[in-house]
Amino acid sequence: MRVAEFVAETEFAALPPAVRAHASRTFFNFVGCALGGARHESVSIADATLAPLGAAVGATVLGRGAQRGLELAALLNGMSSAVYSFDDTHAEAVVHPGGPVGSALLALAEQRPANGERFLTAYALGVETTCRVSKAVSVAPAQGDAGWIQTGITGGIGAAAACAKLLGLDAARLAHAVGIAASTASGMRGVSRSMCFSYMAGNAAANGLRAALLAERGFTSGEDALAAPFGFAAVFARAAHLEALTDGLGARYELMANAFKPYPCGVIAHPVIDAALSLRNGQGLVPEELDRLTVRLNPAALRLAGPRHPKDPFEAAVSVHHWAAAAIADGAAGIEQSLPERLADPAIVRLRERIELVEDGGIARDGAFVEAVREARPVLECRIAHCSGSAANPLSEAAVEKKFEAQAGRALAPAAIERLVDLCARLATLEDAGAIARAAAGAQDSR
Amino acid sequence: MRVAEFVAETEFAALPPAVRAHASRTFFNFVGCALGGARHESVSIADATLAPLGAAVGATVLGRGAQRGLELAALLNGMSSAVYSFDDTHAEAVVHPGGPVGSALLALAEQRPANGERFLTAYALGVETTCRVSKAVSVAPAQGDAGWIQTGITGGIGAAAACAKLLGLDAARLAHAVGIAASTASGMRGVSRSMCFSYMAGNAAANGLRAALLAERGFTSGEDALAAPFGFAAVFARAAHLEALTDGLGARYELMANAFKPYPCGVIAHPVIDAALSLRNGQGLVPEELDRLTVRLNPAALRLAGPRHPKDPFEAAVSVHHWAAAAIADGAAGIEQSLPERLADPAIVRLRERIELVEDGGIARDGAFVEAVREARPVLECRIAHCSGSAANPLSEAAVEKKFEAQAGRALAPAAIERLVDLCARLATLEDAGAIARAAAGAQDSR
Repeated sequence: MRVAEFVAETEFAALPPAVRAHASRTFFNFVGCALGGARHESVSIADATLAPLGAAVGATVLGRGAQRGLELAALLNGMSSAVYSFDDTHAEAVVHPGGPVGSALLALAEQRPANGERFLTAYALGVETTCRVSKAVSVAPAQGDAGWIQTGITGGIGAAAACAKLLGLDAARLAHAVGIAASTASGMRGVSRSMCFSYMAGNAAANGLRAALLAERGFTSGEDALAAPFGFAAVFARAAHLEALTDGLGARYELMANAFKPYPCGVIAHPVIDAALSLRNGQGLVPEELDRLTVRLNPAALRLAGPRHPKDPFEAAVSVHHWAAAAIADGAAGIEQSLPERLADPAIVRLRERIELVEDGGIARDGAFVEAVREARPVLECRIAHCSGSAANPLSEAAVEKKFEAQAGRALAPAAIERLVDLCARLATLEDAGAIARAAAGAQDSR
Repeated sequence: MRVAEFVAETEFAALPPAVRAHASRTFFNFVGCALGGARHESVSIADATLAPLGAAVGATVLGRGAQRGLELAALLNGMSSAVYSFDDTHAEAVVHPGGPVGSALLALAEQRPANGERFLTAYALGVETTCRVSKAVSVAPAQGDAGWIQTGITGGIGAAAACAKLLGLDAARLAHAVGIAASTASGMRGVSRSMCFSYMAGNAAANGLRAALLAERGFTSGEDALAAPFGFAAVFARAAHLEALTDGLGARYELMANAFKPYPCGVIAHPVIDAALSLRNGQGLVPEELDRLTVRLNPAALRLAGPRHPKDPFEAAVSVHHWAAAAIADGAAGIEQSLPERLADPAIVRLRERIELVEDGGIARDGAFVEAVREARPVLECRIAHCSGSAANPLSEAAVEKKFEAQAGRALAPAAIERLVDLCARLATLEDAGAIARAAAGAQDSR
């Protein structure tokens, strides 16, 4: 398997500086997201249920002040990082690769200490693997199936590749690790508006970790589970494009197209939030004065829009109406705006009623054009060509750090955050990458 | 979800006696298979790798003299029961429901004691759920995809239903358990000629168990994960037939069509083995005298035939040539004939060269017509209308018990086998069904 050979053979020195830097940012963003989601109810239920089934120690559950067995730590960190839909996105494939790979690898690194170079190399290659595998089954000329959650079905494969790399497996065993992970690849959109949304990401992490450990001991899958007849690509795509696995491998890094989310919701709402915040914070729109907000979106984006009045935070993640209304009401679009209290706020509910979504083929998938009609005052408008956090308009270093600090603040004290930011910034030179997990432990969740 | 309501509401008294009896036999067959496979290398690797990640105690690993955490015990027992392809088959759906459901439920019953009636009810309903879900995505008028391993994708759903029933969940939570299991449904044929074959069955068991425990604590999936847009049926079938979930529910039991395998290999080889054993043991065929064996098979069956000379036991599972040759050479077709020593035996290799497979549309999918041409002696022939272990020609009680004893003998001493047969025979009247797990523990695997 060419991908397995590439992962097994590629070392830190071969990674271009820009790739190292972007992989490091991707990991930093993952750690922040895991801290931001660590106290979510779904993570707490999973922890309470599964802790008695797992080993008592092994790895850190970020932001929960707990040690759990390796597999459960990977699962819980993977859940936390995904639970607010605040993670990262490879827009073409609609996959969020940073979380499953980071969760599995960080747990493993606590058990099998590795320096920052080795850790970052494994992480970059795991993220790269997820992005490429996802492209092969979902991006034209491949014909995918919108029912699959790409993070679920490909995240474990990238996690397995990363963990196998950290374990130093040769190409043959690495290929088995990928195949073992493929044998447990899972995740469907039909349950994504529920606690299962983050569970699928967590499972991917745990499955990938387990696959690498099994392969290390000689457990077998197939020689080319991705491309085999009735293999991964055959079952998860109507028509796969296997060339996406290998085109320009080592010369061009797909992980560079992975961008960080500025808002904790589906990317479809992002350009609308950009526009709403601009109107409210930049153009002086007063929520009470709004008569009608017309939102023009690309037809493909519009099809993914959720309900006008989401009944819970899971539905809210894809409710364009809610996020536009909340951004106008609060002048902000963070985790706060996704919580049940804000979903039920009468002022936000009223604003949602005044929002109209309109299909417009002239607008990019990551763009929007928004007009705010006000009684007896001029119409305000805002055009977003490409939303913030898109590949064309990525977050600045400062924005990524600000996002990190806001999320980490939900689980860590300021001094601990400062120390963690510093450790993450020095990732490539750390003697023991597992130090990051321990620094991100936080206090025990008392709820 | 109608299936969840049915499972939540159906009690022992409502199960027809024939259903109770067949469910009990299915469970008995599962226990034997788990004992037969308990010492397989793949199970040993999985145990050695995963034991440090799991809790130290919780449930029994059958035939390995070990206690592991609930989840790992379910996974390992599920692997053991599937590893020799000796389990059971719902022929229409090509699913093996007894193992994943039995593995998950038995592990749970050790933690949450239940009497035999409650246990058997949960088991029957879990097996029924697996069979129906599998039919809905794979049996005409549904259009399935041959790439999926039905046991992998539907076994966890049945296991979740069974465990949720044992836990006494109401219909709403039971539906969530089914959905949580669906979110982790996985398994593809492309890795099935490897250790992943049994791993997929084991995973289904562990995923189902976990799903029920999560749902018990309030973890959510969807209200109808099976039928929802982008839900289970939508992603796992080209065209689903959802009526299979509910047609005659409670009046007609799909589990009655689940039959027990007489030979440890894919069902495609079974009619050929029947014929070969009849020629050798009944008609006096001497292996050395065989010039040519012509095997006529249904075209649909023939397409599933594996290689003439399998390179390992995984390939051997679907090698019609190998099983015909081994049955003629040894006059037997048990686990012994699937082991590497017999695969490499020169006498068997020579016999395989003399076997010719011929397509014949006049033969049933579970039938075969075999002619043995011998030098200077009359041609021998044998026609199998429906192979032993098929729904039309099921194993007798005595044959099921003989099969059990042969498999159990690989892990237990004779006195322990006798006691276990007795406990299984009295399953419905046991005060504590978990006693079966403890009686099937066996001695520690010293390898």
